[in-house]
Amino acid sequence: MNAIEKYNARVDKVNSLVCVGLDSAFEKIPEKFTQTEFPQFEFNRWVIEQTNEYTSAYKPNTAFYESRGDRGIRELKMTMDYLQEMHLDILTICDAKRADIGNTSAQYAKSIFDWFGFDAVTLNPYLGKDALQPFLDYKDKGCMIVCRTSNLGAREFQDLLVEERPLWQIVAETVAKEWNSNGNCVLVVGATYPEDIKIARSLAGDIPLLIPGVGAQLGDLKAVMQAGVDSQRRGLIVNAGRSLIFSENPEEAARTLRDEINRWR
Amino acid sequence: MNAIEKYNARVDKVNSLVCVGLDSAFEKIPEKFTQTEFPQFEFNRWVIEQTNEYTSAYKPNTAFYESRGDRGIRELKMTMDYLQEMHLDILTICDAKRADIGNTSAQYAKSIFDWFGFDAVTLNPYLGKDALQPFLDYKDKGCMIVCRTSNLGAREFQDLLVEERPLWQIVAETVAKEWNSNGNCVLVVGATYPEDIKIARSLAGDIPLLIPGVGAQLGDLKAVMQAGVDSQRRGLIVNAGRSLIFSENPEEAARTLRDEINRWR
Repeated sequence: MNAIEKYNARVDKVNSLVCVGLDSAFEKIPEKFTQTEFPQFEFNRWVIEQTNEYTSAYKPNTAFYESRGDRGIRELKMTMDYLQEMHLDILTICDAKRADIGNTSAQYAKSIFDWFGFDAVTLNPYLGKDALQPFLDYKDKGCMIVCRTSNLGAREFQDLLVEERPLWQIVAETVAKEWNSNGNCVLVVGATYPEDIKIARSLAGDIPLLIPGVGAQLGDLKAVMQAGVDSQRRGLIVNAGRSLIFSENPEEAARTLRDEINRWR
Repeated sequence: MNAIEKYNARVDKVNSLVCVGLDSAFEKIPEKFTQTEFPQFEFNRWVIEQTNEYTSAYKPNTAFYESRGDRGIRELKMTMDYLQEMHLDILTICDAKRADIGNTSAQYAKSIFDWFGFDAVTLNPYLGKDALQPFLDYKDKGCMIVCRTSNLGAREFQDLLVEERPLWQIVAETVAKEWNSNGNCVLVVGATYPEDIKIARSLAGDIPLLIPGVGAQLGDLKAVMQAGVDSQRRGLIVNAGRSLIFSENPEEAARTLRDEINRWR
């Protein structure tokens, strides 16, 4: 069972397309956790306990752990070990946006897939396919290629026209047609513009889309869902990060997001 | 004194444009180091002892440390602490090729500049300027933007034509004209095609170029140097990694590279 199959099985089991972004910035963690020996891990464990029933993927962003040096790395690893011990069958995504030349990418893959034990990773396409080949070669692991990001400045290069089409669409099409021979690719498309998600879906065929940038603004969900679901009413990994994990009641926030997604699915 | 001034001062002091890539893959480290408690750190210390006299920058790539999890991170930090204690005034570059949306980039910057204490970092341009702004805002730190990589697949996206010009040249020009308001940008341009370095120099003005991909193939150096030096016969950071640190005699390799560079400078 590869990463995408694992996700789909979980989606069917708990009827949820929710991905919880474990962007557990130390500065924002409630005091009762910061006083413990492993604050980021203890906070993550609590969030996972609260949310796992409604969740099909967890996606920690490495930056929030790296900022604490080797301590943060250790607590991210503890989080991964905890998820494994719990046998939750929830997809784990390392949001790292890595890319380097092949020899070096192989070392990143070793870190993320072998050492941490993640099911999937986010990757930056700028260096081309051969640079990311060491990741793609892990057939059971998910390679989530950043096409369209949700920041304002995304337009600076991603919207440059190549033969009258924006660069990000060329990236999406190239990944779908040429990088996905192991069937383990996912496209990352920001939720800021539902129109973009519609285009990504048409270029991606059956390839799943990871949608960051949802969360606080639940209003966009209808448009996102209608634009993005595949023929099986799945094919979307809908991430909510800070708005969910730092809410007063993450359990309720996860359930509400799941139900709101399913309303438009 | 910002990172670029630090580099230039060192270049003048030791008459060298050599950057040593501390890509200290655990699998390749000689056995006498792997038997110690901190193998990557001990190997790095030895390489630094051997090479510092001829070196103006050290550039560890994070992937080679992340592959060993928190242990690797700790040994990279020990390497940085050692360089600081030695007061060598050599530029330290974190080759991490990071990029994420602003909030997250700020956490990476915290890791690389504040926790590790690096002088500079390599960054991926695909997400645009606002994503990298938290790095750019560290006025004293160097932001080295990947424009043209040395892998074969680099052409896949970097050579796509935007109004008849390859994407990587648009990136280079944009960085030079719009991202460098703090005077802390550097362009990363692979050494595979000296012609590209010539174009990068013409687009970059006085902005330094970091040149990876030199090393084994000393023959290209003449063309690289003639294409890349600025009006002061500096402006290049010439990296050699594996070919140097894993050679039989890193000291001799560093001295030879320095002299060969100066021959064509």
